[in-house]
Amino acid sequence: MSPPEKKQRTEEYILYYWPGIPGRGEYVRLALEYAGIPYRENHKDVPKILTKTEKIGTPPHFAPPALQLPSGRVISQTPAILNHIGPRCGLAGVLGSKLNTLTAEGRTALRELSDEELEKAEEERSVVNQLTLTALDWCNESHDVHHPIATSLYYEEQQEAAAQAAEVFRKIRIPRWLEYFESVLASNPATEGTNEGRTYLVGKQTTTADLVLFHVLDGNLFAFPARLGQLRKSGKYDNVFALHERVKGEKGIGEYIASGRRQKFSMGLFRYYEELDGEEKET
Amino acid sequence: MSPPEKKQRTEEYILYYWPGIPGRGEYVRLALEYAGIPYRENHKDVPKILTKTEKIGTPPHFAPPALQLPSGRVISQTPAILNHIGPRCGLAGVLGSKLNTLTAEGRTALRELSDEELEKAEEERSVVNQLTLTALDWCNESHDVHHPIATSLYYEEQQEAAAQAAEVFRKIRIPRWLEYFESVLASNPATEGTNEGRTYLVGKQTTTADLVLFHVLDGNLFAFPARLGQLRKSGKYDNVFALHERVKGEKGIGEYIASGRRQKFSMGLFRYYEELDGEEKET
Repeated sequence: MSPPEKKQRTEEYILYYWPGIPGRGEYVRLALEYAGIPYRENHKDVPKILTKTEKIGTPPHFAPPALQLPSGRVISQTPAILNHIGPRCGLAGVLGSKLNTLTAEGRTALRELSDEELEKAEEERSVVNQLTLTALDWCNESHDVHHPIATSLYYEEQQEAAAQAAEVFRKIRIPRWLEYFESVLASNPATEGTNEGRTYLVGKQTTTADLVLFHVLDGNLFAFPARLGQLRKSGKYDNVFALHERVKGEKGIGEYIASGRRQKFSMGLFRYYEELDGEEKET
Repeated sequence: MSPPEKKQRTEEYILYYWPGIPGRGEYVRLALEYAGIPYRENHKDVPKILTKTEKIGTPPHFAPPALQLPSGRVISQTPAILNHIGPRCGLAGVLGSKLNTLTAEGRTALRELSDEELEKAEEERSVVNQLTLTALDWCNESHDVHHPIATSLYYEEQQEAAAQAAEVFRKIRIPRWLEYFESVLASNPATEGTNEGRTYLVGKQTTTADLVLFHVLDGNLFAFPARLGQLRKSGKYDNVFALHERVKGEKGIGEYIASGRRQKFSMGLFRYYEELDGEEKET
């Protein structure tokens, strides 16, 4: 890996993540793909960002994904990365995206914001961050269903606990997550009275929160197809499922999917175990 | 609750959180207490921020804590709140804290930053955010030890799985978390060569990451006293334990603890169950 040159700086983004699974790296990919920002992947140096003895990235990182910015600085933690590049990608809301410190034009525009605009821009960006974090919580919970006791143990070593966790997850938690995001979509004042469905979590443009929700729902559709199919049919969460369809068709995302570069779910965060899925009696 | 007046705005912060436990609300309290920023607590309206039918907070929030800003806007998700108020509290690093959009002086100073300073400030703030998120991951994992299967079930209903989770947590995970933060502290270039121990995660001033790590370690000392005592004695994590001592004595934090307002741990995120604690053979 060649370090970014100090003098003649190119806008180079490098994603450090494990190969073979979409994983949490996928959230970063989706943001960059949406915005059409070129990036390259580096699998082999992932161990180097995790230790203080190597020169890539100070401080050492707890886990990938980590993104190397054009300045050479490496940021890890999925929500921190998304919050950092959100404005640059146009994914932090209309005003929030004006807080872009990653390009010269962005920084100039940022300084031109009025006091009121600056305050509101930061608020909008934080609301996007908040909803992004909440969707990532759903992701984490989806993972913990098949690994309730410890990530370091095999599924087969905690299969009984996983079956119990999956029962609660199917019955109570999946409807709770869907209901929550449906309520956010249905109460968004910016999309009131639109005919095409209310499919934006913040304002009426795509944000990192939309992208994360899209992917987490995608993962749940993969891992719990019977239960999700049943809940989709209930008609109670139409806006959430419509968001999923809309994001799939967004320019950068549609091209990414069509390119074949988007990795398939397998044995990562989201896993399909037939015994953990199933329909539930409606209460 | 009276809404903040539009005309004569006071700098009022309102924390929405459940009464009776420190919980995740404590991370927000620590930041405000550190900075000496007055705030008031509102317990009774917590249910109102969780639903779209009420007027407090749009979008609806998934869970408390939520913080109402002087503008009237409500932000939830602990790391989003801490990232939002970090600069205002002087807790986002030297340069990162110059990204304060919450006061008129802060906004003026922000616009005066050069291109390079703006870019670096945002990076420093994101590194603080990243480490804050990592310390909060340790908090979440500490909780999941006593509730591995579902938060909606009683501990007694998942006691066997909790015992298994605690074993891995004590043996592998607590040392892993301590080792990680020790490596961050010990590789911080800003504290190289200091005599008083290397107790700052970023730069050489307190950040939200320090405060969160302090509280998570405090919670682990409460929940796993035997194991933490053993690990402290090993001498391998002296900087982490020194950070804990230092933060306890920071002006705003020391005053907060002395005031008696800081709630004690009990049956919240961090819980002491004698059967989950214990020393481990060193490998």
